[in-house]
Amino acid sequence: MFLNGMTEDGLWGTIPESVFMMFQMTFAIITPALITGAFADRMKFSALIWFTGLWSILVYPVVAHWVWGSGGWVGPAGLGALDFAGGTVVHINSGIAGLVCAVVLGRRSGYGHENMAPHNLTLSVIGAGMLWVGWFGFNAGSAVAANGTAGMAMTVTQIATAAAAISWLLVEWGKLGKPSVLGVLSGAVAGLVAITPASGFVDPMGALIIGLIAGVVCFFASTSLKHALGYDDALDVFGIHGVGGITGALLTGVFAAEAIGGTPGVIEGNMAVMKAQIVGVLATIVWSGAVSFVLLKVIDVFIGLRVDAETERDSLDLALHGETVQ
Amino acid sequence: MFLNGMTEDGLWGTIPESVFMMFQMTFAIITPALITGAFADRMKFSALIWFTGLWSILVYPVVAHWVWGSGGWVGPAGLGALDFAGGTVVHINSGIAGLVCAVVLGRRSGYGHENMAPHNLTLSVIGAGMLWVGWFGFNAGSAVAANGTAGMAMTVTQIATAAAAISWLLVEWGKLGKPSVLGVLSGAVAGLVAITPASGFVDPMGALIIGLIAGVVCFFASTSLKHALGYDDALDVFGIHGVGGITGALLTGVFAAEAIGGTPGVIEGNMAVMKAQIVGVLATIVWSGAVSFVLLKVIDVFIGLRVDAETERDSLDLALHGETVQ
Amino acid sequence: MFLNGMTEDGLWGTIPESVFMMFQMTFAIITPALITGAFADRMKFSALIWFTGLWSILVYPVVAHWVWGSGGWVGPAGLGALDFAGGTVVHINSGIAGLVCAVVLGRRSGYGHENMAPHNLTLSVIGAGMLWVGWFGFNAGSAVAANGTAGMAMTVTQIATAAAAISWLLVEWGKLGKPSVLGVLSGAVAGLVAITPASGFVDPMGALIIGLIAGVVCFFASTSLKHALGYDDALDVFGIHGVGGITGALLTGVFAAEAIGGTPGVIEGNMAVMKAQIVGVLATIVWSGAVSFVLLKVIDVFIGLRVDAETERDSLDLALHGETVQ
Repeated sequence: MFLNGMTEDGLWGTIPESVFMMFQMTFAIITPALITGAFADRMKFSALIWFTGLWSILVYPVVAHWVWGSGGWVGPAGLGALDFAGGTVVHINSGIAGLVCAVVLGRRSGYGHENMAPHNLTLSVIGAGMLWVGWFGFNAGSAVAANGTAGMAMTVTQIATAAAAISWLLVEWGKLGKPSVLGVLSGAVAGLVAITPASGFVDPMGALIIGLIAGVVCFFASTSLKHALGYDDALDVFGIHGVGGITGALLTGVFAAEAIGGTPGVIEGNMAVMKAQIVGVLATIVWSGAVSFVLLKVIDVFIGLRVDAETERDSLDLALHGETVQ
Repeated sequence: MFLNGMTEDGLWGTIPESVFMMFQMTFAIITPALITGAFADRMKFSALIWFTGLWSILVYPVVAHWVWGSGGWVGPAGLGALDFAGGTVVHINSGIAGLVCAVVLGRRSGYGHENMAPHNLTLSVIGAGMLWVGWFGFNAGSAVAANGTAGMAMTVTQIATAAAAISWLLVEWGKLGKPSVLGVLSGAVAGLVAITPASGFVDPMGALIIGLIAGVVCFFASTSLKHALGYDDALDVFGIHGVGGITGALLTGVFAAEAIGGTPGVIEGNMAVMKAQIVGVLATIVWSGAVSFVLLKVIDVFIGLRVDAETERDSLDLALHGETVQ
Repeated sequence: MFLNGMTEDGLWGTIPESVFMMFQMTFAIITPALITGAFADRMKFSALIWFTGLWSILVYPVVAHWVWGSGGWVGPAGLGALDFAGGTVVHINSGIAGLVCAVVLGRRSGYGHENMAPHNLTLSVIGAGMLWVGWFGFNAGSAVAANGTAGMAMTVTQIATAAAAISWLLVEWGKLGKPSVLGVLSGAVAGLVAITPASGFVDPMGALIIGLIAGVVCFFASTSLKHALGYDDALDVFGIHGVGGITGALLTGVFAAEAIGGTPGVIEGNMAVMKAQIVGVLATIVWSGAVSFVLLKVIDVFIGLRVDAETERDSLDLALHGETVQ
């Protein structure tokens, strides 16, 4: 409670406990932040605060404990599921919550009729570039040391991300006729997500295949699947983080290499890890999906989830915050 | 002179002296850069160069020596005032100079009648985000080692900054009716400023309170106080850096914890440190204010401070630099 | 091939070989990326992919091996040419290739009649700022250790960059009547380029002179020289990276200080290093220029280099990628 008991000299392994706490908090804060992309431009600001606040207490730490905790039943202390840097804890968790939000809130008015592509691609490129660099903090940082494990995690992160950017680009080029920079950025994020659980467990060749697959799978999840199901996931939180996270979690079970992280995967003859991966994915889907649903319904009863039609038409920026974005 | 005598192998403590010199220079360059926010859009470019150049020689190093120098009368070598990462040296120093500039130059034409809010909030968010991250370099970096002191300084910086962002938001929401992202950004900067002198001396609970107070105090300094006094401080250099710096310097004296930085504060029964804090603040106000005033007056005599009305109407970007900002 | 044989525990010197590999790849990827600035807005996307892909295999690693390789004939293993962080390998290499591209492709339609200045100076400033900070990774990083050599490389990089920004500004102010922020940014990049080969070999005073010279030389290369010769180098890849790289390579030979990098330069009486610098520059010009020319001609035969006039008029963003940039 309020970091009570944390001292300047306390250590977690070989690093100060304050530094480890801050590192863990980066995962805890990015996860609910990712969800906001799914309900952008239609949720009340007060509902957003309640939802992300309660979600950060009731969902995130539960899954984090299951997967990473010293007594967690999904991770090393239990079934042995592998999640090096948050594929399950961060990305499936936020992706499923985002899908539930998109479905419960309904579509933005005008969805399907108006162009809702990002309004400033230059800033999208800058943002994706900063995300790519910052992600090394999550993946290499999860070695919690400046050593060969961190170096290899950085390497496989780079390979998978670049591979997914290229495979998304190629599928888009073939299907839609034109390769776009937004496709490259989306593919890169898909690759970052998919390699996240695998980043301490696979070798460069495994990373290459994971990236190539993730770019293709997330492309179809964010286009064909989204259009078929009709939900409005504004920033493709489910299509990229949810589907990319599930893809990565399963492929971690396939490509885990004993020489890298100490655990063999399916290709090296270990079927048990795959079962653990599947159970971990399903448990996260159920918990995140169910609690998110209940939270939304409860908030809807007390303060309402969605702004009225006029506020949405005027834009939330202007109506709720008195601001405009250039 | 020209780094004469600095060698590749020379050490300052345990780090290369070249690295320590570069680190110190980041403080020396940010301080006059902050002042420019106060006189934006009306000072001559040549006057700006003379003022910031002379100020960097006559004001900054004097205060830095008083507070941090091995023979400085304000800091550990003298009265024992605490300034871990530049609350007095950087923020009070620049904030007071900014106020003097704003008063001496007078208001921008149109001030009070035209909307002068930042023209691009997306870039403001990006800028504030980079500032927040970069600030860890100042505060954690001031431990001059990768150790528990640096980790705790990073932690309290994060807590105070987040707390100030929230408290500014809440006051704004209550007073003006709408919470704005510009308010969150302004509050975050206020928190960064206020925790700067305290960051090696207070614990997380102290940081939380410092942040909450700083957000409220700087909100009123940048709105009610500024409007009441009528000066035109374009980027609230005085309202945030000056007032936030003074708030932080005094609260450092209140909340300093012996278990963190070795010096107890008022709450732990040490009144002496508070006296040192107050004297340090006053000395900085007097020196920065007086020398800045004299510098401006001298420059005004020789080359003039302010552009003519036509240049200001056309915008300095276009008239002085032949450029336009999108 | 595909990092075959790289292990988690393998070391290059004292760092993991995965980390050294990633570091080397940052040089390998930035070099062809720099070239793209020369043929912007007129080359086919497919031609771009073929050109940069083949160039990365046929040109970059050859020069890198000559200059840095354990058996390279230009560098320490051969003639003894000095290139600490890629002045020859990255900047002359890309600058010459860019010039060849600009000449072979011809000018953009409208060049010389329409304003083709950067359309968003705020983003230019952000980009240059990130570049400046990131460049420390190249120059200080080339010490491949966190030591005094890295600290001194960081220091001289900062000094030369700031000096070049100022000298470009002053020449522009004198010649064109107005100092511009784009001039400061261009000068800073010129300084970064010129100090790159020298950054492990010169002292602060040498860096100051190199920077001052580079800002002036690159200003004239990017204005008078470019206009006189009539090529359309959209981002001044040749004017800044090519000319700045050559300037830096030669001045490294002049100002190398035995006390810093172990090798004396011309000023300290060593003429031999100057000969090596000149041969290295000439060899890079010939290889990069010749192979780039052949690659362009071969690609022109098979798929064509330049988009048609209508595509260029509509903008490549829209016609080839279905996107618009705000």
